Amino acid sequence: MKNPFFKNTGPYNINDLLKSINLVNETNSDDKINDIKDISSAQSNEITFFHSKKYIDLAKVTKASYCITTEILKSYLPDNCKPIVSEKVLLVTAQITKIFYPDSITDNFDVSVENIDKSEFKEKVKFGKNVLIGKNVNIGSDCLIGHNTIIEKNVVIGNNCSIGSNAIIRNSIIKNNVHILDGCVIGKKGFGFFPDKNSNFRYPQIGIVIIEDNAEIGCGSTIDRGSLSNTIIGKNTYLDNQIHIAHNVKIGNNCIIAGQVGFAGSSTLGNNVMIGGQAGISGHLKIGSNVQIGGGSGVIKDIPDNTKVMGYPAKNLKEFIKDNR
Amino acid sequence: MKNPFFKNTGPYNINDLLKSINLVNETNSDDKINDIKDISSAQSNEITFFHSKKYIDLAKVTKASYCITTEILKSYLPDNCKPIVSEKVLLVTAQITKIFYPDSITDNFDVSVENIDKSEFKEKVKFGKNVLIGKNVNIGSDCLIGHNTIIEKNVVIGNNCSIGSNAIIRNSIIKNNVHILDGCVIGKKGFGFFPDKNSNFRYPQIGIVIIEDNAEIGCGSTIDRGSLSNTIIGKNTYLDNQIHIAHNVKIGNNCIIAGQVGFAGSSTLGNNVMIGGQAGISGHLKIGSNVQIGGGSGVIKDIPDNTKVMGYPAKNLKEFIKDNR
Amino acid sequence: MKNPFFKNTGPYNINDLLKSINLVNETNSDDKINDIKDISSAQSNEITFFHSKKYIDLAKVTKASYCITTEILKSYLPDNCKPIVSEKVLLVTAQITKIFYPDSITDNFDVSVENIDKSEFKEKVKFGKNVLIGKNVNIGSDCLIGHNTIIEKNVVIGNNCSIGSNAIIRNSIIKNNVHILDGCVIGKKGFGFFPDKNSNFRYPQIGIVIIEDNAEIGCGSTIDRGSLSNTIIGKNTYLDNQIHIAHNVKIGNNCIIAGQVGFAGSSTLGNNVMIGGQAGISGHLKIGSNVQIGGGSGVIKDIPDNTKVMGYPAKNLKEFIKDNR
Repeated sequence: MKNPFFKNTGPYNINDLLKSINLVNETNSDDKINDIKDISSAQSNEITFFHSKKYIDLAKVTKASYCITTEILKSYLPDNCKPIVSEKVLLVTAQITKIFYPDSITDNFDVSVENIDKSEFKEKVKFGKNVLIGKNVNIGSDCLIGHNTIIEKNVVIGNNCSIGSNAIIRNSIIKNNVHILDGCVIGKKGFGFFPDKNSNFRYPQIGIVIIEDNAEIGCGSTIDRGSLSNTIIGKNTYLDNQIHIAHNVKIGNNCIIAGQVGFAGSSTLGNNVMIGGQAGISGHLKIGSNVQIGGGSGVIKDIPDNTKVMGYPAKNLKEFIKDNR
Repeated sequence: MKNPFFKNTGPYNINDLLKSINLVNETNSDDKINDIKDISSAQSNEITFFHSKKYIDLAKVTKASYCITTEILKSYLPDNCKPIVSEKVLLVTAQITKIFYPDSITDNFDVSVENIDKSEFKEKVKFGKNVLIGKNVNIGSDCLIGHNTIIEKNVVIGNNCSIGSNAIIRNSIIKNNVHILDGCVIGKKGFGFFPDKNSNFRYPQIGIVIIEDNAEIGCGSTIDRGSLSNTIIGKNTYLDNQIHIAHNVKIGNNCIIAGQVGFAGSSTLGNNVMIGGQAGISGHLKIGSNVQIGGGSGVIKDIPDNTKVMGYPAKNLKEFIKDNR
Repeated sequence: MKNPFFKNTGPYNINDLLKSINLVNETNSDDKINDIKDISSAQSNEITFFHSKKYIDLAKVTKASYCITTEILKSYLPDNCKPIVSEKVLLVTAQITKIFYPDSITDNFDVSVENIDKSEFKEKVKFGKNVLIGKNVNIGSDCLIGHNTIIEKNVVIGNNCSIGSNAIIRNSIIKNNVHILDGCVIGKKGFGFFPDKNSNFRYPQIGIVIIEDNAEIGCGSTIDRGSLSNTIIGKNTYLDNQIHIAHNVKIGNNCIIAGQVGFAGSSTLGNNVMIGGQAGISGHLKIGSNVQIGGGSGVIKDIPDNTKVMGYPAKNLKEFIKDNR
């Protein structure tokens, strides 16, 4: 699938690509590369990366023509896929992604915006004072957009949505009947970079935010877009005020998340999950469906379906109650 | 007392009211109902609700003409009060409240606002650029309102108040000498609804926010209005930045609340309470006066007067120190 | 050093100064006082304060002509420094600071701002809609300032900075290549005051915020300016979203601080510190270099260099893991 919002500046010749980041091209080839994708979605004439044994099964059947990987892992790649060997797989991946998608690195303000009353949405949308709309925006029927709100470029809003005042939205797909309350910032780049003593190297964030039907996002919440995959808020899921959702988080349907909860990157939640106020969810976790997480909990391990947890670190609720009698 | 801000669309005939939410009228009566109130304040020709044994004493003497309640609890009602029986008391209450107060469900942006220099406050108030003022707003003498701030409809501001920039206020009464700093959102609807698989049913929020004399609210804080009662910040109480106060919370006088503290709904605090940064207070708790709560604490039980607590869950401070030596 | 931003309304005659706050002048002198400073930086014809034995070594060699101190501590002062005795040293210090710097007490919105297209920066800066610029602002080359952002008076911005939309900055020095994301509030007064039953006495906040080269501040973060010293964010330090930094905090270089972390006042961090999401750092702590603090931790003690901690209260990481097996 083509990236919906970020402009791919490719194709690039593999030789030029590697030279520009000071890597030697040991593949002796000279192909045109169209895009960079993750290992399961990359196609012929695309480049991917493979940095952990967790992905061996996917690597064995990748359709990518090139793969950034380590000396040890390269043997798992199929014949169609030429290895680009580096001990810094993620950094090289970031460097090449940056070449394909230079716009995804920083979130400078959108210079393309115009006041909505100069836009095609003048008649269609009910809007407040000083509403700004960027390029490549689409808005459905019966939507409301509050005062001082900025819909930057690359936003799709469905029907019947209510966007509050002082909100900022970019690089996002908002489905139908969604409520986004005052002061939210949605679709900004995730907090991803490679530390470097002089100036950190920002990781490109080419994913988007998707907010499904009937969801509600509370005041002052921040939802960052994904790096290579997307950040997703499920159907009919409600978020209270001052919630922080980091990049690549995927929240299921019918979840209820109370105020000031925070998610580190790349965790997934099932459906019907309830989370009490100020709880924190670490990165790269898998939280099942029908899970209840008590207020103030710090979740640092996966949680299976139908489980109630509480505490820091979070443990089974019964155990928490017993330990704190 | 009449609701100060939300328009009561009643009276409604009790028969029509119940029919419209698919309930059978077993009372065989046909009265006009003027309003919906809680069990202690409801009067003749008003409807109330009674869903928990905690309120038996109030139920026995209610002046309401009708009461939504359960098969078991209805026997406690006095003769003047006809029961409307349902096993979903709170949902039926919400449905009927929504009929009386349809404006209280959602917080779509206020279309009634005008730039302050077109309002009656043009000369009276010292204001910044792009300040918007809604209908039914009153502002006292010697007030300051910062840039881009939106005073939506239904706001009363006393004398000598300083409102910062980028703030949003609605459905609130701000008394005298109050400071509200940049980026606050005050008076939005609380996070209340009945979960429903397709689309949650939002609970009407017909309460307001009251901020008493000399209080200060830090940057980026959110204070939600009450559902049936009000959210109150006491006299000379100071809130630091990024604090979240949920609906119906009542905070006493001379309290000091540090940054990023969060309150779940309906808790009450006495006077002279000090709360350290990032502490969280669960819902429906009673915190006494002269209480000190350590930073980062998670309070899940009532706290008596003159007590120092810390920890998650919060316990007596001495015990916390002993346990963590 | 002269205060860079706050106007010193002095000099004041020592006699008049003390009389205006109802203190008796027991020094029998009548000198002009030029400024109020901390005990190590105060010079001849300036006043300082000395309230704790921690500062005896500095007090013994102070160059100040006057020092607010206690009956017990006054004996440590050198001959050049006349004691002003009070048992409320900090309150008297605040009262005198307020006389010298009346503008530092409250953060009423800046009435001096103009739209940037009426300013000297019209050609030099790339800016969005509705950008406001106050007096005494300087902006370097190649800077971007987003929509609705307010640069209030007393701000210096270096070269190559990107400021997002809906941000508010005052009383701050931003160096080069700094990124400040949407909705930040930087340079507001700290949360400092003396409790008083009727109306708290606000402590003057005459420090500033300094953000060093290559730093990044995430969306919706608040960084308060210092009271007498400054609040500092080091070089190439990255802050994620919704972070709260209280007055006088000093963060070193190359630190990485995840979302919703909070700092109480006056703590210092070394270099290369990593802090996980939602961690809280109490006030007046010294955190060393190369420290790692786990997400959700509550730090209430100093942490030496090269240490990993986690927990509430935070302890050595190995111990935390052992205790929570």
